[in-house]
Amino acid sequence: MAMKLLITSGGTTEAIDTVRGITNHSTGQLGKIIAETFLAKGFDVTLVTTKTSVKPVKQPHLTIREVINVDQLMAILKEEVPKHDLLIHSMAVSDYSPVYMIDFDTVAAADHLQTFLTASNKEAKISSAADYQVLFLKKTPKIISYIKEWNPNIRLVGFKLLVNASDEELISVARDSLHKNKADYIVANDLADIKANQHKAFLVDDKTVCSANTKEELAQLIYERIIAHD
Amino acid sequence: MAMKLLITSGGTTEAIDTVRGITNHSTGQLGKIIAETFLAKGFDVTLVTTKTSVKPVKQPHLTIREVINVDQLMAILKEEVPKHDLLIHSMAVSDYSPVYMIDFDTVAAADHLQTFLTASNKEAKISSAADYQVLFLKKTPKIISYIKEWNPNIRLVGFKLLVNASDEELISVARDSLHKNKADYIVANDLADIKANQHKAFLVDDKTVCSANTKEELAQLIYERIIAHD
Repeated sequence: MAMKLLITSGGTTEAIDTVRGITNHSTGQLGKIIAETFLAKGFDVTLVTTKTSVKPVKQPHLTIREVINVDQLMAILKEEVPKHDLLIHSMAVSDYSPVYMIDFDTVAAADHLQTFLTASNKEAKISSAADYQVLFLKKTPKIISYIKEWNPNIRLVGFKLLVNASDEELISVARDSLHKNKADYIVANDLADIKANQHKAFLVDDKTVCSANTKEELAQLIYERIIAHD
Repeated sequence: MAMKLLITSGGTTEAIDTVRGITNHSTGQLGKIIAETFLAKGFDVTLVTTKTSVKPVKQPHLTIREVINVDQLMAILKEEVPKHDLLIHSMAVSDYSPVYMIDFDTVAAADHLQTFLTASNKEAKISSAADYQVLFLKKTPKIISYIKEWNPNIRLVGFKLLVNASDEELISVARDSLHKNKADYIVANDLADIKANQHKAFLVDDKTVCSANTKEELAQLIYERIIAHD
């Protein structure tokens, strides 16, 4: 039976109110190329992504599921992870979610700022009257840390994105994430090295580091390591 | 000579750091339909929009200019407004722009919160270590209020989006905006009444109120009022 691959791509958006949200930028281009690489090899692929992300063309062995925010992503992965053999988690997941937005003067006059951490906006569209506003944000759950709980047998490829980091730092941060999340591989990449036709990345496991220079090379590298791993 | 029409569509994004931003949601669908309606009537159209917005197909009388944030929109409109006869400003423009993001404990321990309004993040990607963070935001310039300064002869159609408002409230807010921004018409619409194939809206001027129920009806209505106005 064909191996079942789960891929996440694109970036989540956490709503501030009904008209505004905080988005982690990601076109979904890398996830699309990884999906296409594995589909061409005969894998069944489930792609969890966002409405605006680029996607492979419709085809028999591809299932696409769309999400907006971290809560939805969490619910879908909890359901899908036990049904798959492999997860490539390339999505740019929001690390903070809005709690409460209020004008600056109210915050400056408050005795205890803690109150704002449990407040919530009742209005559908937050007023834009004040010159300054303050947005309180809460850390989102680290989804990658739940994957092996949901399916101890799934093979997990996680991602770490840094900005203007050295190669040593990228690899060291990748190894930390590898251990903390019980991942099998971590792809470490740097925003400064991602351009239209360039995508420098390291594929890191406990012992080795492989490097790629384009999204196609990275997809092929992940494929080869996964297959060799069998 | 053909009338020259400037349209804005989509929603701007204000960067928090290199990987995150605050986006005003808008698909650009209404601006696309307005552009197509006027192109079919022989107008020259300049469409100022975002990368992810839907757009009309490439064609001789259509020029597309892409922007990301309010600063870029301001610069392009300052340049384009004097060259056009008519502006239909349907873009969802960010009303606040991030100033500074910092962990909650630092804010709670500070003597004067004012300091944070003039601070700025030096790091390319803001740390996601803290459980709670605080984002300080500053009001963006109201671009619509500059249009008639840049070109007193341009005809201006502005937009007001409310959420769960009564018809009376929509029309009253539209009239306020009409006077304050010296607009010729304001389209007032309510997010609760905008669905895939429904777009309830009022086209309001000093004396009259016309209503439409779809994006196509609204585009046709704007066209007819503009032409009758000549």
